[in-house]
Amino acid sequence: MLKTYAALVEYDGSQFRGWQLQKGVETVQQAVESAISKVADEPSRVHCAGRTDTGVHATGQVIHFQTNKQRDGYSWLRGINSNLPKSVSMPWIKEVDNDFHARFSAVSRQYRYIFYLRRISPAILKNYVTWEYRNLDIFRMRKAAQYLIGTHDFNAYRAVACQAKSPVRTVEYIDIHQQREFIYFDIKADGFLQHMVRNIAGVLAAIGCDEKSIFWAKEILESKDRTQGGVTASPNGLYLTKVNYADEFNIPDTLTLPSFW
Amino acid sequence: MLKTYAALVEYDGSQFRGWQLQKGVETVQQAVESAISKVADEPSRVHCAGRTDTGVHATGQVIHFQTNKQRDGYSWLRGINSNLPKSVSMPWIKEVDNDFHARFSAVSRQYRYIFYLRRISPAILKNYVTWEYRNLDIFRMRKAAQYLIGTHDFNAYRAVACQAKSPVRTVEYIDIHQQREFIYFDIKADGFLQHMVRNIAGVLAAIGCDEKSIFWAKEILESKDRTQGGVTASPNGLYLTKVNYADEFNIPDTLTLPSFW
Repeated sequence: MLKTYAALVEYDGSQFRGWQLQKGVETVQQAVESAISKVADEPSRVHCAGRTDTGVHATGQVIHFQTNKQRDGYSWLRGINSNLPKSVSMPWIKEVDNDFHARFSAVSRQYRYIFYLRRISPAILKNYVTWEYRNLDIFRMRKAAQYLIGTHDFNAYRAVACQAKSPVRTVEYIDIHQQREFIYFDIKADGFLQHMVRNIAGVLAAIGCDEKSIFWAKEILESKDRTQGGVTASPNGLYLTKVNYADEFNIPDTLTLPSFW
Repeated sequence: MLKTYAALVEYDGSQFRGWQLQKGVETVQQAVESAISKVADEPSRVHCAGRTDTGVHATGQVIHFQTNKQRDGYSWLRGINSNLPKSVSMPWIKEVDNDFHARFSAVSRQYRYIFYLRRISPAILKNYVTWEYRNLDIFRMRKAAQYLIGTHDFNAYRAVACQAKSPVRTVEYIDIHQQREFIYFDIKADGFLQHMVRNIAGVLAAIGCDEKSIFWAKEILESKDRTQGGVTASPNGLYLTKVNYADEFNIPDTLTLPSFW
């Protein structure tokens, strides 16, 4: 009998060339499919909620796969984890309705972006934060972020190569706070375009350091022109932290927001 | 005219085979000497306060070197940092009295040890914390740690290869606290024997998970027998956080205590 399993996957994106399968390079999808295939003793195809780019981390990626093989939950969890490379782990796995789809059932996603403000480049945490030598004013960043809340055409904030049909997304919130030298930028939306979070982070950083006006975030948005955007911020500081589903699927409500110092 | 410079050095120990120069392997000392030599345009010998082992990090290592070359502080700092590998950085450098010695002038050192408690191995931060799948009770660990405060013969807590002449050290404090899944263990002493912090961490972990009695920490200490000790805890979670000197040297009072989540 066909069963569908959902699972949480966390990974250190600095060790992979992104999520999606690519010939000849190490990707998270390949690592997860390989581990599941070993336990299931059959080839396995895995679907994720959000295909992250090279260098982008996840503490809250959700995946699903289908199988006819019978294993209890603990056997799946233990078996898969022992076959995953050290840079990937699976905190939980559970059987779900067969109509659950990690990507298409998702109603919203949350990302966190972390800036580390220092004059001198940090020796520790390099892969887990984005080093920023300029001083960023979070009050300017918060004001600029307000222009992006709500339903907008985010064409100017996506990658040229982005293949999503519609550039319209609804941003529910952008929260920005600072703890010591770290600035945490949390964003929740129904979905994200390619590089959307990194482009927003890059624009907010340019505004935060006073290189650009607060209004610039809105000007770019309204231009709908991909060439108007600022620098795409580095993937090091970006984490997919949570994917939300309708209650009926009973997906565990786990949220891990990475923070440092 | 001979000048002596003191500097703070931070490094990601996972990228080096410890501090001390060794032929054919990458060490922090070699990286720092090489960067300073390039700026000084002459060979440079560097002395550090605490020679850390492979995998051990530092946010507060202090070094000194002597040179006849004339450079202003900013030139040294900028030049050295631009010649250091990404896993090492120098937050400050300053000219000090010629009788300053990073190691022999130090009056005390502080280390932090970080346990990350999870059932499933963490994919993120692997090199920066020690994963512990057992549940550790910090109240048991705190009680056991009290036996180690003060002046004792720590022979049972040092590595067999430790070359220090005297095994007597004075531990000023051991503070243990928990934030979410992280246990932080801070220790300050006049000096440390080889593997002393890792051996104490290993003993306290065995006590924290109820595998050993609280009194075991004292039994080991009193045995003065190196073969009685517990497991040497992994270097991943260990940081040299601060080195203290007499006020007369005017060493900047910088303390960075790494913490996560």
